[in-house]
Amino acid sequence: MTTELETVNDWRVFATDHALNSVALAGDTIVVTWSDGRETAFHRFFLRDNCTCSQCYLPLTREQLFEITDAPEDLAAASAAIDAGGDLVIGWSDGHASRYAPGWLRSHAPDAASRAERHAARPRPFIWGSEYADRLQSFDYADIMADDHTLWTWLGALRSSGMTLVRNVPLAEEALLAPIARISHLRETNFGRVFDVKSKPRADSAAYTSVNLPPHSDLPTRELQPGVQFLHCLINDTVGGESVFVDGFAIGEAMRAEHPEDFATITTTPMAFWNRDDRTDYRWSAPLIALNAEGDLDEVRFANFLRGPIDAPAERMPAIYRALRLFQAMSRDPRFFIERRLAPGDMWAFDNRRVLHARREFDPQTGDRHLQGAYVDRDEINSRWRVLGRELGEPC
Amino acid sequence: MTTELETVNDWRVFATDHALNSVALAGDTIVVTWSDGRETAFHRFFLRDNCTCSQCYLPLTREQLFEITDAPEDLAAASAAIDAGGDLVIGWSDGHASRYAPGWLRSHAPDAASRAERHAARPRPFIWGSEYADRLQSFDYADIMADDHTLWTWLGALRSSGMTLVRNVPLAEEALLAPIARISHLRETNFGRVFDVKSKPRADSAAYTSVNLPPHSDLPTRELQPGVQFLHCLINDTVGGESVFVDGFAIGEAMRAEHPEDFATITTTPMAFWNRDDRTDYRWSAPLIALNAEGDLDEVRFANFLRGPIDAPAERMPAIYRALRLFQAMSRDPRFFIERRLAPGDMWAFDNRRVLHARREFDPQTGDRHLQGAYVDRDEINSRWRVLGRELGEPC
Repeated sequence: MTTELETVNDWRVFATDHALNSVALAGDTIVVTWSDGRETAFHRFFLRDNCTCSQCYLPLTREQLFEITDAPEDLAAASAAIDAGGDLVIGWSDGHASRYAPGWLRSHAPDAASRAERHAARPRPFIWGSEYADRLQSFDYADIMADDHTLWTWLGALRSSGMTLVRNVPLAEEALLAPIARISHLRETNFGRVFDVKSKPRADSAAYTSVNLPPHSDLPTRELQPGVQFLHCLINDTVGGESVFVDGFAIGEAMRAEHPEDFATITTTPMAFWNRDDRTDYRWSAPLIALNAEGDLDEVRFANFLRGPIDAPAERMPAIYRALRLFQAMSRDPRFFIERRLAPGDMWAFDNRRVLHARREFDPQTGDRHLQGAYVDRDEINSRWRVLGRELGEPC
Repeated sequence: MTTELETVNDWRVFATDHALNSVALAGDTIVVTWSDGRETAFHRFFLRDNCTCSQCYLPLTREQLFEITDAPEDLAAASAAIDAGGDLVIGWSDGHASRYAPGWLRSHAPDAASRAERHAARPRPFIWGSEYADRLQSFDYADIMADDHTLWTWLGALRSSGMTLVRNVPLAEEALLAPIARISHLRETNFGRVFDVKSKPRADSAAYTSVNLPPHSDLPTRELQPGVQFLHCLINDTVGGESVFVDGFAIGEAMRAEHPEDFATITTTPMAFWNRDDRTDYRWSAPLIALNAEGDLDEVRFANFLRGPIDAPAERMPAIYRALRLFQAMSRDPRFFIERRLAPGDMWAFDNRRVLHARREFDPQTGDRHLQGAYVDRDEINSRWRVLGRELGEPC
């Protein structure tokens, strides 16, 4: 593998084994052949759009100055050649000139084979069920705080399994803010920057009830549900109150495989969620399972206690309720969930848009229970993971 | 119009002229006829799901305890009647009993006529072009701070036109936080809670260049672009630097009407956006114009200087570049934009996911320019608007 220098428009380094063998002009495209025999036709506007000369790009900000709408409609490559260094060099019909490194070209090639390769190389989530209880990914607070490689590994685990445990977090209020500050700013909500999950021996408010909380994501009432939830245990003396987690992606893939019709319903039917207090009125509707543009699982959204009435045509109601009842039943199925009791100093960190969490009923007469929580969105997790990967020379 | 008391599961009041005339059982549904002759078939699970008795709902939190997956598969209405008060009363085959007010039932009726009525009654955005310059919705800082009705009107304007001006904001750093605090918490980003848009007579960083900034939304690199942007002018002494705004929904509707093929391309092709600094690496791909489930315009996402290479099949490139070039050209079309110079004490408040903003080139040698900005997401705008509407007796 040869490694090429990063291009001005990117911090990544595009390595390739594949040299450019030849180039030819063909209608609206510039066609290159590669040393492995592959052929790629680049559209003239695509190449012009990605010119990184200092007229088209501000080197300091790495941002594009050129706007493709300013290219003439009939712009064409007047000349195309592979230079001594192996780069593709194009002279445009309006006099502009552009240069492209083969590593960058190969990494952005729009031919079917190259796109299929990139799609196949994308990381897949690690999907888990009840067996994950015995091999839950755990990290030590001190390692996360001191060591960038551990931090990178932890964030990678959050991206992959969506479910991690951090141990030995100091037993102090807001101690969870220190590992969060290692990542980024946090996601504030109307519950504050840090929220308290507290019970008192005699609960005086319904917000602090001790009942069983069925599997749910937090704040499905928001357009963007909070990404990663951090839940730090300060006190847990009560009888009961175990934490339960379900990989929503496992439910999704099982539905897809075992109940394809219900899967189609659950991924396309908007469900309403809204809160009901006297100071806020948040509402959002979206499918319980959202797919991305490639059809992969992207998000799970569910909290039965925040559901609103289903707004759908009468004739769709039987199919919708069948799928909803199945989804709810699966979220309780022992093959999917792990159950564990948090000890003081433990902190769950899990993807709130994937992993549903639940709390077993507990007896508030038997002791105290105090957890603190906060959120960081997926964007921040991903950005930090990529920059650490850059710095550590790890794949990103 | 008769007004009914709110139901336990809602803070809204469901008024109706329509009484229940009769009820009958028909297979999986409970069919009611209304005083205006309309007929609605409610699915048995829909009604059971929305029972608001104190066994099914926690009155204090207004949250559902009952889970529909716990209803027996063969649940049926054993009896259905309209009681003396006009409510629908159902006795279920498992012994449970439920009661529903006619106003609530009518507001959630799944028959085609009722759904079409609700769809037609939904507020439509006020779409504007260059003519809006003369009738820009302006509000006075003191009124927003002191008067809830003005606050409600302002938030309604942000929901409807997406573009407002607030005058007479105090000339102090972070003065924009006071009107934001009237709404909710703000949306923090890696640029901080408040960001400074500052130029110096001799710009020493590319971040503070004085070049023309083409029409863009802020942070299209995030899965959820910030909702409403507040931009408060403290100093504006330079020659040039006028603000330009374009209603992205106007571009969208014009594309839909005049270039339906390009509209189809632009609403379905993911475009990549990413930032390029040394401490963050944010990336997101999404169509430049996003539609909601009903096909209405929901969001515009664009910043040419943050675009990444288009990842699409080679054969789609001609259509994609045609649509992109058209979109960019329209974003500069004088029929769509308004241009205005901010004076100290002025604050723009606009929907960053709808209204593209631009800044004309200015001459940093001619004086100082200092703006402060912050974001609040649409969820918070909508929640506050709804609660104010509740309190003021306005529609929400």
